[in-house]
Amino acid sequence: MNEQEEARFSQQIAFLLEMDKMKNIYRQTRVLHEDRAENDAEHAWHLAMLALVLHEYANEPVDLQKVLATVLIHDVVEIDAGDTYAYDAAGNATKAEREQKAADRLYGLLPPEQGAYLRKLWDEFEAQSTPEARFANALDRVQPLLLNYTKHGESWKTHGTRKEQVMQRMQPVYDGSQTLGAFASEIIRRAAEEGLLKE
Amino acid sequence: MNEQEEARFSQQIAFLLEMDKMKNIYRQTRVLHEDRAENDAEHAWHLAMLALVLHEYANEPVDLQKVLATVLIHDVVEIDAGDTYAYDAAGNATKAEREQKAADRLYGLLPPEQGAYLRKLWDEFEAQSTPEARFANALDRVQPLLLNYTKHGESWKTHGTRKEQVMQRMQPVYDGSQTLGAFASEIIRRAAEEGLLKE
Repeated sequence: MNEQEEARFSQQIAFLLEMDKMKNIYRQTRVLHEDRAENDAEHAWHLAMLALVLHEYANEPVDLQKVLATVLIHDVVEIDAGDTYAYDAAGNATKAEREQKAADRLYGLLPPEQGAYLRKLWDEFEAQSTPEARFANALDRVQPLLLNYTKHGESWKTHGTRKEQVMQRMQPVYDGSQTLGAFASEIIRRAAEEGLLKE
Repeated sequence: MNEQEEARFSQQIAFLLEMDKMKNIYRQTRVLHEDRAENDAEHAWHLAMLALVLHEYANEPVDLQKVLATVLIHDVVEIDAGDTYAYDAAGNATKAEREQKAADRLYGLLPPEQGAYLRKLWDEFEAQSTPEARFANALDRVQPLLLNYTKHGESWKTHGTRKEQVMQRMQPVYDGSQTLGAFASEIIRRAAEEGLLKE
């Protein structure tokens, strides 16, 4: 390696070590088989598994590699900006600004063209401007729904979440996948019926 | 959805729920910023991030999507077979048989053609028979090395790991990536120099 190549490699390793912090950002969702919150690294891995298995249900044809890359990096900004609970109105008001700053710093650790590529995927995800971004978003909303429902609404009960809030939160799922949208609606219907969500 | 489509969808969701158990399989490697072991879901996510950022260093051109899918699923068998520490000789003697049984059951949860595809990726990973499998293996060996070294050899000290053992363990890295092989050797050299590995 010449000096330039070494500098590039060092930037890549520095970014990948920084990524370890994703393992320490805890979400509101609980893992199924332990009494603890799920972290961002586990969540991103689970979304990637959903993408692998469920991509046939995307509304439009999607580039699976791009979907995978998008779900893998979609929460990286939370290393600096933290996780904001989906139903926390105050936190969500300042979220965009905090996350833009975080994206500047974190993707800025990488060699410029690589940082720009991952940043673009994240920008598209935020803007919901591509079929891959819309499908990734559908997965990002369905996965916690599926876990919360399977775990008897544990995190909904903690937060006193109402059926109406979850229905609103799941609306964009239809933009990525009609099939997953219908699936989400059916889960919400059952969860309310079983008293896991407040009417 | 007709009945057949619903059966297919149910199999996919059952597989994806079973996958949650990856979050509870703890490895010997420690995460960098908490005092705890890394689990299989976090590890697979981190490998996928390495693949995204470092695939230019593969010895042969690789299909990134295939590398991503391989690292995402490479440890799924541990849901039934458990994690076997790389330097545990007794555990490794029975590992292959336990993992084959696990693969039969776990990939068998999926619709047949999907299960067969993921099983094929895992078989190729085990046999090291494709460029993607070799590169995935290189990442799988380099990632814990990088974390152990960055965390001052914590898990090496616990196990009294010797430099020679780690050198042997890292040998296959060269088959996937000469660059990562050389990087691994340099880390081992430094780790031994700093007393993190026994000579």
